[in-house]
Amino acid sequence: MKRKLLFTPGPLNTSAAVKEAMLRDVGSRDKDFIELVRGIRRRLLELGVVSQQKGYEAVLVQGSGTFGIESVLSSAIPQTAKILILVNGAYGERMVKIVARYGLAHEVLRCAENEVIDAGRVREKLADAAITHVAVVHCETTTGILNPVNEIGAVTREAGRIFIVDAMSSFGAIPINLETAGIDFLVSSANKCIQGVPGFSFVLAARDELQKCKGIARTLSLDLYEQWRGLEMDGQFRFTPPTHTLLAFAKALEELEREGGVSGRNRRYAANQKLLVTGMKELGFVPYLAPAVQSPIITAFYYPAHSNFRFEDFYSRLSDLGMVIYPGKLTTVECFRLGNIGDLFEADIRKLLDAIEHVLEEMNISVPVPAPVR
Amino acid sequence: MKRKLLFTPGPLNTSAAVKEAMLRDVGSRDKDFIELVRGIRRRLLELGVVSQQKGYEAVLVQGSGTFGIESVLSSAIPQTAKILILVNGAYGERMVKIVARYGLAHEVLRCAENEVIDAGRVREKLADAAITHVAVVHCETTTGILNPVNEIGAVTREAGRIFIVDAMSSFGAIPINLETAGIDFLVSSANKCIQGVPGFSFVLAARDELQKCKGIARTLSLDLYEQWRGLEMDGQFRFTPPTHTLLAFAKALEELEREGGVSGRNRRYAANQKLLVTGMKELGFVPYLAPAVQSPIITAFYYPAHSNFRFEDFYSRLSDLGMVIYPGKLTTVECFRLGNIGDLFEADIRKLLDAIEHVLEEMNISVPVPAPVR
Repeated sequence: MKRKLLFTPGPLNTSAAVKEAMLRDVGSRDKDFIELVRGIRRRLLELGVVSQQKGYEAVLVQGSGTFGIESVLSSAIPQTAKILILVNGAYGERMVKIVARYGLAHEVLRCAENEVIDAGRVREKLADAAITHVAVVHCETTTGILNPVNEIGAVTREAGRIFIVDAMSSFGAIPINLETAGIDFLVSSANKCIQGVPGFSFVLAARDELQKCKGIARTLSLDLYEQWRGLEMDGQFRFTPPTHTLLAFAKALEELEREGGVSGRNRRYAANQKLLVTGMKELGFVPYLAPAVQSPIITAFYYPAHSNFRFEDFYSRLSDLGMVIYPGKLTTVECFRLGNIGDLFEADIRKLLDAIEHVLEEMNISVPVPAPVR
Repeated sequence: MKRKLLFTPGPLNTSAAVKEAMLRDVGSRDKDFIELVRGIRRRLLELGVVSQQKGYEAVLVQGSGTFGIESVLSSAIPQTAKILILVNGAYGERMVKIVARYGLAHEVLRCAENEVIDAGRVREKLADAAITHVAVVHCETTTGILNPVNEIGAVTREAGRIFIVDAMSSFGAIPINLETAGIDFLVSSANKCIQGVPGFSFVLAARDELQKCKGIARTLSLDLYEQWRGLEMDGQFRFTPPTHTLLAFAKALEELEREGGVSGRNRRYAANQKLLVTGMKELGFVPYLAPAVQSPIITAFYYPAHSNFRFEDFYSRLSDLGMVIYPGKLTTVECFRLGNIGDLFEADIRKLLDAIEHVLEEMNISVPVPAPVR
């Protein structure tokens, strides 16, 4: 299998040192491993600018990010509650799908995929006294849009509701302070901005809200409260943890620290994204989102208005050159996506831009490509 | 973190090549990766002596083995059904816990932890026409006992019921033919006898029974039917797969083949286990199980009847010497466990025996150790 650069929202490129950390087998009950897990949990809280002393807890959950989201939604919402889900993309819709599967009362506030969720509209919705929880996706990977979690959190807290944030593709690269944002549950995953390999997700939670989860979970594997109790009691996962993935993650956290933490990583990603958009615009591509709402994580671009452009062909040719890009996930508009997170630097972005120019030439599409009719 | 030999039921020692397979990042939607996943699924069916042509399917599920078990139990049993769970250890009890959480009608046939499940008693239970499903653990890791799945399967099939087998710590090292054993759902995990690293479980299922799971699942993440449909439709996991773990697993499957498949691996494990028990007996230790029901996977030994023996101390000293052993999980008897699966060979077993002798000396316990009063 050829080595490729991944311009995707994850799994992404990790450093050699992160991968090499997996070159050992450790016992999941061994005290060194238990210490490593404790260190990971402590460090994750620090990245959210909170701590156990401040009343927060970190819980690791096996599986992909969706497993973490489902763990929270199926463990934190009693059958008598009602959740307001704010949706402007596929990951918001996924939360709706999850709560629907559990038969939980819910309401959905949808807005256009290229518009951020408006905190004012959330406040209006919260006039419904039945609503007990609010959930939103921070960075919607569907488009790369960045929702204003701080504003939404302020409105939610003011109204005394519980706030759940899917920070899958933002945590570690976009500053989030759980306390000031009023976040009760935040979910992210190993293989996003912290630059680990995939295999587990994690939940940062206000302890008092986590304690209220006792007895609510509908599943055993995704029981957030029991998973937390297990980790607290003897430091162990209740069920076999992905040991190698955790070793890689501990190394990834070290590297994040060396890069200057969240702000350092943010700078590199923002520079990557700026270079990418500038280069893509020079090639004639048009970004889907307005710059004001665009995250430094992933960018959606319209298909060019050229009869020779076939996304599958474009994708395959880039893949053959060792560059993996990402298809679109928008409901109405034809776009593809380019991620710029992971162990990627200026030189990699330039390589991608060169490869795209080369592939367009191969496809007989003149540069600059014709702008799409919108 | 010091490198250690793992005498546990997993995570276990994997080969250098298996770990080195993780030294690359791949896109989860990339066609080479999709091909790799298809190959893994095909090969898993072959290990169960079945195939898609024969009407069987392999589904991979993120998370530990328990996630796979819960995926089957929460996806294959309608609310109107009733499951008979056969229990002689902690993993049988875990299935009871799972079905109870979903409020599924169930009956439990329990026998002593040192006795195999008797197929005759299962037949009697199946006189209850309400019972639609039967579940059993093949090798109960609690004790290392090997339940007679073929006999239980014959009785279950004869009675026209659906048969679910937890083959977590047996699949890949103990021959199982799904078709002749009448197994409808078999669950195992990456980090057991196939010698991969932890991160996912897999389900081998009779296609007609899998198709009946449509619409039953109570969760999104663990929806076995939808996971299968996703893998069949475009070869992709519905949610981010543990890519590195899968790369390691593909290599582990190659190595299993090179070792002579299930029978080759069985020979090595059986030789390991024989050497281990012989050596432990020479040191005075007494195995918990009768040889006739003992699997070649993991062996439980009674604590010796010596006032200096403290398991925690014994464990720590061995760990300091680079040998990780496993605590007991029995409800009534004090035992510890020694696994002999994974990338372990005669020389490793001898190293462990030497280390145990050395540690006993350090603990001022004369060899042979005094036999426990039973």
